[in-house]
Amino acid sequence: MVGTGLIGGSIGLALRSRGWVVTGSDAAAGRAERALELGAVDAVGDDPEAEVTFIATPVSAVVAAARAALGPDGRRPSRVVTDVGGVKGPIVSAVGNPRFVGGHPMAGSEQDGIEGADRELFAGATWVLTPTASTDPEVFTRLRAVVTSLGADVVAVPPERHDDLVAVVSHVPHLTAAALMGLASEGAEQHGALLRLAAGGFRDMTRVAAGHPGIWPDICAENAAAIVTALDQLATDLSKVRDVVAGGDRAALISILERAREARRNLPTRLSRPEDLVEVRVPVPDRPGVLAEVTTLAGELGVNIEDLEIAHSAEGDRGVLVMVVDAGASELVRGALLARGYRPSHQQLG
Amino acid sequence: MVGTGLIGGSIGLALRSRGWVVTGSDAAAGRAERALELGAVDAVGDDPEAEVTFIATPVSAVVAAARAALGPDGRRPSRVVTDVGGVKGPIVSAVGNPRFVGGHPMAGSEQDGIEGADRELFAGATWVLTPTASTDPEVFTRLRAVVTSLGADVVAVPPERHDDLVAVVSHVPHLTAAALMGLASEGAEQHGALLRLAAGGFRDMTRVAAGHPGIWPDICAENAAAIVTALDQLATDLSKVRDVVAGGDRAALISILERAREARRNLPTRLSRPEDLVEVRVPVPDRPGVLAEVTTLAGELGVNIEDLEIAHSAEGDRGVLVMVVDAGASELVRGALLARGYRPSHQQLG
Repeated sequence: MVGTGLIGGSIGLALRSRGWVVTGSDAAAGRAERALELGAVDAVGDDPEAEVTFIATPVSAVVAAARAALGPDGRRPSRVVTDVGGVKGPIVSAVGNPRFVGGHPMAGSEQDGIEGADRELFAGATWVLTPTASTDPEVFTRLRAVVTSLGADVVAVPPERHDDLVAVVSHVPHLTAAALMGLASEGAEQHGALLRLAAGGFRDMTRVAAGHPGIWPDICAENAAAIVTALDQLATDLSKVRDVVAGGDRAALISILERAREARRNLPTRLSRPEDLVEVRVPVPDRPGVLAEVTTLAGELGVNIEDLEIAHSAEGDRGVLVMVVDAGASELVRGALLARGYRPSHQQLG
Repeated sequence: MVGTGLIGGSIGLALRSRGWVVTGSDAAAGRAERALELGAVDAVGDDPEAEVTFIATPVSAVVAAARAALGPDGRRPSRVVTDVGGVKGPIVSAVGNPRFVGGHPMAGSEQDGIEGADRELFAGATWVLTPTASTDPEVFTRLRAVVTSLGADVVAVPPERHDDLVAVVSHVPHLTAAALMGLASEGAEQHGALLRLAAGGFRDMTRVAAGHPGIWPDICAENAAAIVTALDQLATDLSKVRDVVAGGDRAALISILERAREARRNLPTRLSRPEDLVEVRVPVPDRPGVLAEVTTLAGELGVNIEDLEIAHSAEGDRGVLVMVVDAGASELVRGALLARGYRPSHQQLG
C-alpha cells in the first residue's frame, strides 16, 4: 500500500479484515503511523515481496510510485500493481507495464484522510479497472478477484474511455456543484434568507462541493480535454433549457424533463445477485489483449461480469475464458462476442 | 383544503394529527375520496366556514381557487387563505387580498400524489410565507402559528424576493440536474458502461430529476425572468470554470472549489432550539405593513423567528410586536430594527 489516506486506509482495512497482511507507507510524515494505530496496516514501510501493491497517492505521484513498486522488469514477475487515481489514460500509458492495471474505485466520503477510512467503503461500489492489449491476463484476473473480494463490482473499460466517461458522470458534475454553490453563496451575501430556502434537492446537488479540493487540480490537469468537451456540451444543453424557459415552450420543457426522469429512474443500481446466472465460456487464443478486449466489451455493453477466470488448455496456445453474467444479459454478451469473431458457449448456473 | 395531492394530503394528515377537522376537495375525480380513505381529510368538499384554507393546487389554478375561498370581501373577515405554490409574486399580486398570504413549504418527495403524503413531511422544513404591506397582521400571525405547529420553520420574505431566491436554490438547480442527467444519458447511448460509473455524487446531484415534470411548466412560465437571470449567471460561472480547466490555472481552480466548500459547509441546518432565547419587544404603530416589514427584515438577515405575537395596547392605535429569536442573533435584529426607526427592547428567556 503506497499512500494511506482515505482510499488507501480503507483498502488496508478491507484487506486486513479478509485476512491479508498489509504493509503501508505514505509520503506525509506520521500518516502511515496513524494508519497503523487505526488498524489499516500491519506494518509501516514498503514490502518488496507484496503480492499486490495499491498505489493510493494523488494522481501526480502515481507514475513514479508505480515504477518504484514494479521494480526492474522481470525481477518479480508475479507482482501486481494498481492505482486508484481519478484519471487513467495518461497514467496507464506512462507506466506502460503488463503488470500494472489502472484502477479507480468509484467511492469516497465527505471525510478526508485516514480518519475517514472505512473497511466497507467499497461494498456495492463500482471499481473500474482499465486493462489494455498489453496487460498480463493473469495479473488482471488476480487483481479483479482481490477487488471483488472487497465487495466492489468491477467494470473493465479502456483507460481513455474511462477518462471520457468520468468527465461526464464525475468531474463535470463536481465542477457544476461548485458553480451552483458559488452562485447561491453570492446571492446570500445580499439576501440572508437565501440559504434558509435551500431544501433537500439543493443540499443533495451540492453535497460533493463540501469535499476537499486537494485532488481536483491534478484531475483537471490530466483530464482537461475530456472535461472541457463535457462542459461545452453541458453549456449547450443549458443554453437550450434557457431558451425553452425564456420562450415559454411548455412542450419542449416537458420533453427535456421527461427524458431526464426516465434516464434517472433507469440508473443502474447494484445487481441483486440473481439466482439465475449464466456461465459464458469463450475459447480464446492465449495472447495478450484478448482478456482486455472481452472484459472491456462487457463494460461497453453495461453488463456486469459477476465472476471471471481463465482456464488454460493443455496445449498451451489456447485457453478458455469463463465469465459469469446475469441471465438477462447473456444473449447480449453472446451476440457481441459472436460479432467480434469469438465462439462462445453458455450454460445456466444454479 | 383545496387540492389533495402530495402536499395537500400531507398538510391534511399533519393538521388532523394535531386535532383539526379538515375538509378537502380536488379537481381530479376520485382524488379527494382517496384522501378521505387515507385519513388526510375528515370530509370531502369545500368548507365555507373553514378557519384556514390551504390552496394546494398547481400554480396556474391558485388564483381562482383563492378568490373562491376568500368569497366576497368582508363577508367572512376571520378566514385565512394561503397557498403552497412554488412561485409567489404573480399569485400574491393577482389575489391582492389582506386575508391571503402566499406560502411555499420547501419540502417534497420523490413520490407523487396523495399516495406519497406524509404527516411528518414538514417537520424541520423551511416554510416560506410572503406577507406584504397590505397583509392583515392577525391573519399572518394566525397562519404562522398553524404552519409552525406542523413542525416547519417559517421564513418571511416579500413575494418577489422569494421568486428570485428560489430561482437560485431550487428552479435552476432542478433544470441543471435534468441537463446533467440528459448529458449522461446521451453518452450512455454510445457507452453502456457510463451509467455504471455513476457513483454517489452523481446520484445525489440528479436525484431531483426523477421527480414528476408536471409542476415545472407552470413554475417556469410564472418565474421565467428570475430563472433566465440565474441560468445566465450559472452559464457565466461555468464558462469561467471551463477557462480555468482549459488554461490549467490550479490556483484559480482551488479558489473556486474552496469558496464552494466553505459555503456548503456553512449551509444553515435546522436550529437546535437553544436553551437561551431572547424576546425582542418592538412597539409598533397599529397599521398594516409593519408586521410584514419586521418579519421580512428578519428573513433578509437570515434570522429565524422562533415565536411571534402581537400585543395590542388598550389605546388601540399602537401595539407591541413580540418576537422570540436566537440569543446569538438578537443584537443583529436589534441593530436592524434601530436602523429602521423602531425602538426595540429585549429580554433573555429561560
